[in-house]
Amino acid sequence: MTAQLEAPAVSTPAAGRDADPVFALHRGGKVEVVSSVPVETRDDLSLAYTPGVARVCTAIEQDPDLAYDYTWKSHTVAVVTDGTAVLGLGDIGPMAALPVMEGKALLFKQFGGIDAVPICLDVTDLDELVETIVRLAPAFGGINLEDISAPRCFEVERRVQERLDIPVFHDDQHGTAIVTLAALRNAATLTGRRLEDLRVVVSGAGAAGIAVSKMILDAGIGDLAVADSKGMVHLDRTDLSDSKRAFAQISNRGGHRGSFVEALRGADVLIGLSSGTVPAEAVASMNRDAIVFAMANPVPEVHPDVAHANGAAVVATGRSDFPNQINNVLAFPGVFKGAMQVRASRVTEGMKQAAAVALAAVVADELTAECVIPSVFDPRVAPAVADAVAAAARADGVARL
Amino acid sequence: MTAQLEAPAVSTPAAGRDADPVFALHRGGKVEVVSSVPVETRDDLSLAYTPGVARVCTAIEQDPDLAYDYTWKSHTVAVVTDGTAVLGLGDIGPMAALPVMEGKALLFKQFGGIDAVPICLDVTDLDELVETIVRLAPAFGGINLEDISAPRCFEVERRVQERLDIPVFHDDQHGTAIVTLAALRNAATLTGRRLEDLRVVVSGAGAAGIAVSKMILDAGIGDLAVADSKGMVHLDRTDLSDSKRAFAQISNRGGHRGSFVEALRGADVLIGLSSGTVPAEAVASMNRDAIVFAMANPVPEVHPDVAHANGAAVVATGRSDFPNQINNVLAFPGVFKGAMQVRASRVTEGMKQAAAVALAAVVADELTAECVIPSVFDPRVAPAVADAVAAAARADGVARL
Repeated sequence: MTAQLEAPAVSTPAAGRDADPVFALHRGGKVEVVSSVPVETRDDLSLAYTPGVARVCTAIEQDPDLAYDYTWKSHTVAVVTDGTAVLGLGDIGPMAALPVMEGKALLFKQFGGIDAVPICLDVTDLDELVETIVRLAPAFGGINLEDISAPRCFEVERRVQERLDIPVFHDDQHGTAIVTLAALRNAATLTGRRLEDLRVVVSGAGAAGIAVSKMILDAGIGDLAVADSKGMVHLDRTDLSDSKRAFAQISNRGGHRGSFVEALRGADVLIGLSSGTVPAEAVASMNRDAIVFAMANPVPEVHPDVAHANGAAVVATGRSDFPNQINNVLAFPGVFKGAMQVRASRVTEGMKQAAAVALAAVVADELTAECVIPSVFDPRVAPAVADAVAAAARADGVARL
Repeated sequence: MTAQLEAPAVSTPAAGRDADPVFALHRGGKVEVVSSVPVETRDDLSLAYTPGVARVCTAIEQDPDLAYDYTWKSHTVAVVTDGTAVLGLGDIGPMAALPVMEGKALLFKQFGGIDAVPICLDVTDLDELVETIVRLAPAFGGINLEDISAPRCFEVERRVQERLDIPVFHDDQHGTAIVTLAALRNAATLTGRRLEDLRVVVSGAGAAGIAVSKMILDAGIGDLAVADSKGMVHLDRTDLSDSKRAFAQISNRGGHRGSFVEALRGADVLIGLSSGTVPAEAVASMNRDAIVFAMANPVPEVHPDVAHANGAAVVATGRSDFPNQINNVLAFPGVFKGAMQVRASRVTEGMKQAAAVALAAVVADELTAECVIPSVFDPRVAPAVADAVAAAARADGVARL
């Protein structure tokens, strides 16, 4: 049986908005700022505001680390975008990106107990974007970069992190990578293979594609090759960007050239992070018990039913209406929670790998082809990820608590 | 009877913090970000986040004004500082300023129902500060500038407002000015005088001193002269900054030179906005039924008991433990509430004057020497100010609703 998946209409005429439950829910926004202390009496005011507050300010001036004790810094992150690569919509600008940043903020709170502030920046120049983020950092304990276009996002993250001693994390890269690796670990276990024996083909060399690939390589995968819109990425290509060229040097040990479909022949794992499609025959040409992660949103590269019918043992997508949803919300709340618990100065590779291992372990005792990754509502996820990330931060020497 | 007022100790040793109720209240900060929509089920997620949220983003991309309907923008302001002039503490930096900005955020919510986000910027160069504020504006419906040093604050406000079509309001200037003018209106009524018959002497030519003076002049005061640390400001002085020189041209019609104390002789009103002291004899030398606003914090320029004993009919201070507290919280929540209700593109002089009139009117029927300004907890204040500001915005042609 095959099925058709169509992208939902993205534009909604004014007349339709009133009847649309999405617009009804968004009316007035999705997050608010509330007081966590009483302000009912003059005494309350003189403690929370002047004159009392001056003592707290002076204490922090003398010892900046006290900001973690006596302000919201220890549990608050900025969710920062410039609106240049929002969902699959592209460069829609900072204002139109706000509903996504608010959504992210509510996920931070709901799943990680972390306060998150949507920050939508009207600036796209790389240097200015970096400077702006660095300047607004003092009130926050972490920076979650979101929906910033590649390849700028790599440089923004690297340079902002270099300047700040709080965790800076581009979720589109590393959140996706952590969850994908966790699912891949469990899928390998389930099909009786070791990571070092797997050959992986990735479709999509954008921010997520490169980040997922790097993290899988670091986890000790056998071989991994990436395809962009022109075919497999390899060192003899003359049209590669700097970041793709750097990546070509550490990947494609098997020397795959030509098309993505050709490279799939005999491969163990397909990871789709583009908006293209994968023909049923290409899935059929993969190794037996193939692992297919078709994560394009909203339309997977191949329908799960088609993948299974053509020999795939495990299928994951980005969608909530199929089993095995690869959803960043399984990673970022726990990653920030763990990093901020120990006041980590950054998020190391070790912390990300630990997050993937911990996330996979949550369902280790209940593994099936339809459960290689926990549900986003599994309450064990964020604490498990946070504990692993905090321990790894200590092991890597970046924890300050 | 005279009394001594001493400034409370501003520094608290580490050992004392645990026992200090101020530090106990500040632990973990004073505001948090919470969800205003449910996130309990997969359906909730698909409405509030992907895939549903994409429709809202696209709608806003096509019509940016829809951000007011479908995000938090319509009810959210940024409380922005660079930490250069925090309370009376001076340039303590952005991180140490955070407790004050959090305090401001909780006052915004408590008194105006407005969500406010503390933004502490690590930048002091004027051009860069302006650019940074402009860049972070898209997610906010207003900008409350706070604790930015003079004379930079004048230029920052002017230039940011020029670039944005949302209200930009430096509270240290205009909030103080609105509340002071409201109290002065009522004090004049109570003592049977008209504004145009009053002669006012202001001590302090900083941001608040100049803003208060300008607003009082605009309200039609008889004459007003300002003193800085070198004495009365007049056009023959060769040591004036540009902003003081500009101000000298519109004030001091009486030609007062020499010292502040000399200028007080025969004056009707003293407005203290410096940290200096005013001798009892100087108050005694004022006109009968003098009006004394001694607003230095935490130590008023003259103790209220001393002022009354030397002939003052009405005394106001910045403190909550004396009658007639001149507190900005009487103005800024209502000003932003009113301006944002009608999507005003700026805060005009007319809107500020209307706020002062409305604030004074709240206690018009209950005027006494101990009540020329409402209590900060008077629930009539913010709605009255907001209504007046919204109406003035419409009258001034800056309202978009």
